[in-house]
Amino acid sequence: MSATSPTAIALLSGGLDSATAAALAIEAGDRVIGLSFDYGQRHRRELTAAAIVAAALALEEHLVIQVNLALWGGSALTDSRIPVPVDGPQDDGIPPTYVPGRNTVFIALGLSLAEARGAERLVLGVNAVDYSGYPDCRPDYLEAFQGLADLATKAGREGHGARLWAPLISWSKTEIVRQALRLGVPIADTWSCYSGGDQPCGRCDSCRIREAALIEAGRPDLTSRGGDGG
Amino acid sequence: MSATSPTAIALLSGGLDSATAAALAIEAGDRVIGLSFDYGQRHRRELTAAAIVAAALALEEHLVIQVNLALWGGSALTDSRIPVPVDGPQDDGIPPTYVPGRNTVFIALGLSLAEARGAERLVLGVNAVDYSGYPDCRPDYLEAFQGLADLATKAGREGHGARLWAPLISWSKTEIVRQALRLGVPIADTWSCYSGGDQPCGRCDSCRIREAALIEAGRPDLTSRGGDGG
Repeated sequence: MSATSPTAIALLSGGLDSATAAALAIEAGDRVIGLSFDYGQRHRRELTAAAIVAAALALEEHLVIQVNLALWGGSALTDSRIPVPVDGPQDDGIPPTYVPGRNTVFIALGLSLAEARGAERLVLGVNAVDYSGYPDCRPDYLEAFQGLADLATKAGREGHGARLWAPLISWSKTEIVRQALRLGVPIADTWSCYSGGDQPCGRCDSCRIREAALIEAGRPDLTSRGGDGG
Repeated sequence: MSATSPTAIALLSGGLDSATAAALAIEAGDRVIGLSFDYGQRHRRELTAAAIVAAALALEEHLVIQVNLALWGGSALTDSRIPVPVDGPQDDGIPPTYVPGRNTVFIALGLSLAEARGAERLVLGVNAVDYSGYPDCRPDYLEAFQGLADLATKAGREGHGARLWAPLISWSKTEIVRQALRLGVPIADTWSCYSGGDQPCGRCDSCRIREAALIEAGRPDLTSRGGDGG
């Protein structure tokens, strides 16, 4: 990495997936700026985790922008009156932890920062395998967003807008864990348990998917520290 | 309008265009919820204007969300070190008052609110005639955003997502003024002079386009009160 390395913006939730995606961008030679969102989430503890991840990965910079989606709620993650589902099984529907339009807002903000900084890449930890219930984690959604981005921004119209890059999109959680271990991602410090307590609940979808993958990857010692939703 | 009227979200900048678009939605029979953005703009006075417009049009509700795009700047509207251009003529390029990704962020937030409230329409005051220099005010951009919205949200995937509605997109500013007069929009209370003073500067693009239209529409008495950028 040098002063002439390409710049990438990595959306950083504090969870395992986005940390792994950011680490992949660094491995690819990018100067990585992290962007996190204080959006009124009940699991605000993930923002502390994001800061720890940013420091551990030695990101160029880490920005946190406030955008209070709890102003209108509509999700178990932003409205304390809606319970977080626990003890699965997850069904095929869209779960109540889905936040209306959240990823669209986050990616839009990432593109804004990318254009302001002349970044070439917007790095996303989205994954369509374990989170197939979320409409805004699917490949067709990301393809449509790339098309919009190419029309939306000055840089895009000029042909040098940021490219969306979601390297984990089709990986299993176990594969993500293996890559995170290979890349030195501080897995134990990542966090995205949905429930907002001091310790991960171990029962929400996010905790359950993560713990199963850590066990399958041969690292059950890491299971008690957090879940992951991005 | 009744309790069973369709709900619309209208993005409300405080300027003439968005106020006129909101008034058109009311005329069409919608229950209109206004949404404004405290985004670090130097012309924050437009937020006061937005509140006055919301009250004058008797909107169902008016929400203001903070999303500080000045955190990364990149525009004359969000970075005080970049001067607002005055005394035109406007050229064909993208002007320095363009805010990277701003409309994408605003529309994304509008779609989030629309989904949370089950709104059927997202009302936009964007105009491609006077603001053709802005990439995110053009019809192809809005069409691409509709395509994204249909994939992005739970409601969109289920076939009942919000429709983007930009009734002013191809109108001249003079036509907008004529419609605003017909609809009783409080034109004198609208505001979007870019320069951020206590009084409109009369020299930025926004002021100049507005003043010319008011004169052409036969209302020069309204020229000294404000410009409009949305």
